[in-house]
Amino acid sequence: MRTVAFLGLGIMGWPMARNLARAGYQLRVWTRTREKAERFAREHRASAHPTPAAAAENADAVVTMLPDAPEVEEALLGSAGAASTLAQGAMAIDCSTIGPTAARRIGDRLAALGIAFCDAPVTGSRPRAEAATLTFMVGGNSEVVARARPLLEAMGELIVHVGGRGHGAFAKVIANAVTAINAAAVGEALATVQAAGIDPQRWLEVARAGSSGSQMLELKAPAMLARDYTPLFRLRHMLKDLRHYLDEAEKLGLEPALARTAERLYERALALGLGDQDFAAVAEVAGGARSAPRRTP
Amino acid sequence: MRTVAFLGLGIMGWPMARNLARAGYQLRVWTRTREKAERFAREHRASAHPTPAAAAENADAVVTMLPDAPEVEEALLGSAGAASTLAQGAMAIDCSTIGPTAARRIGDRLAALGIAFCDAPVTGSRPRAEAATLTFMVGGNSEVVARARPLLEAMGELIVHVGGRGHGAFAKVIANAVTAINAAAVGEALATVQAAGIDPQRWLEVARAGSSGSQMLELKAPAMLARDYTPLFRLRHMLKDLRHYLDEAEKLGLEPALARTAERLYERALALGLGDQDFAAVAEVAGGARSAPRRTP
Repeated sequence: MRTVAFLGLGIMGWPMARNLARAGYQLRVWTRTREKAERFAREHRASAHPTPAAAAENADAVVTMLPDAPEVEEALLGSAGAASTLAQGAMAIDCSTIGPTAARRIGDRLAALGIAFCDAPVTGSRPRAEAATLTFMVGGNSEVVARARPLLEAMGELIVHVGGRGHGAFAKVIANAVTAINAAAVGEALATVQAAGIDPQRWLEVARAGSSGSQMLELKAPAMLARDYTPLFRLRHMLKDLRHYLDEAEKLGLEPALARTAERLYERALALGLGDQDFAAVAEVAGGARSAPRRTP
Repeated sequence: MRTVAFLGLGIMGWPMARNLARAGYQLRVWTRTREKAERFAREHRASAHPTPAAAAENADAVVTMLPDAPEVEEALLGSAGAASTLAQGAMAIDCSTIGPTAARRIGDRLAALGIAFCDAPVTGSRPRAEAATLTFMVGGNSEVVARARPLLEAMGELIVHVGGRGHGAFAKVIANAVTAINAAAVGEALATVQAAGIDPQRWLEVARAGSSGSQMLELKAPAMLARDYTPLFRLRHMLKDLRHYLDEAEKLGLEPALARTAERLYERALALGLGDQDFAAVAEVAGGARSAPRRTP
């Protein structure tokens, strides 16, 4: 499997595709913005294509890294989708974070066309995508996951087969719900620290040494204090994942109260126009009751 | 300062007092259960006393590690309180987690009696108390904090002066609110993982490698999966801290939505009789909507 169609060269997709190219795969790329695909092709000896179908022509595998399920479904199964042109026996690996129900549906539709599928969403943001140290949680049957593993290993360092089709997607949105809650909790705490007149840096020093420590405290607290929301993972995408999580959890009869509260906070931030900022911008609304919405710098 | 009255030999207080004894301080102890004080005295060449006043007689410092503000106030300033018998120029160090308002009030009352005071709550649970690797966040004026430092260093490894009187207590309840939220978020996630039929161990493996990682995921997820709630920090105490946090945050005009949601979850767990279990028992109600309350093993 040496020829890979890569669909979606966003914040995460670009460095992931680049790591596949560096690992020796021959890449055929497509992304929404044509100039971006052409720039990638020039920089990484890949070929750029105007449609997913063109990119996938005779490819042995297609990797998707797209915003959400409709884009994945369109890119794989739409009128100019990859499924129509892939080589015989090819496989599709979706690394996007989409809802588990959608992942199962897309997998089923591909299977009906004889195309193997696994859902392999990633955790880790752009710096880890660049360093090829992403974590993949993979859903699919064992044979498919074994075939996907070399590609995933070129992009990540921990590849865990969590279950059958759709379970990768499910495991991911559950993890993201925890991330979303933890980040908002840090924002809420910092709002109180600042309102109380406690030195935020000293508070951080003790908070990170104790049981309140978290990846979000490490990674997002400094950005929140600086109000620097340069996007590593956009707030609107985090909100999307939270909603996928809540939809699936409710189907199982659960009522995740914290995730629901977090959803409201991210919605409020979205309403303030922060959707394309990093999700650390939830700090702008965490703690509530600010008299006027603050503006990002 | 060689003679220290130590008031409160609970889950945390016992190993903290023991570390002071090992560091060479002469300890005079009091705790609610007299036999416990006497056992401590036998094991650590300390003296046990029937009241805080008796324990504090001519002591150079008094350290309190008690459940909440009323107990601290009574032990220091009640009719048989330490303030009446401490040596001239002695200081009081409160390591309990109490509300910032109470810490300021107690400090003010002691100051009126010529007794220096700092609020120095700890983060870290029993294993770190035993290893003398606790973190202290200290509020008080610089001179008092400098005098307290050698004692604190005998019990902990990171001592941070976060601000004036009451700011140690405030910094602590803010950090605990983050801890309480993060723990409940893990419980909520695990409820979904299990309901979805995803292998919890594999989910943990990926969740801890990603941005969802936290001290609570590391420390509490295994206990939650095993439903082993042997108390390291009791659920009722966590709820108390959450309430202190919410009270103070609201006084500042904030509305911490996640902490409020977490409060409801811990309240529900308390109502199920889980107050004296470890606060990881919040997992029994996180995710909500279980048809019947589960029992702890």
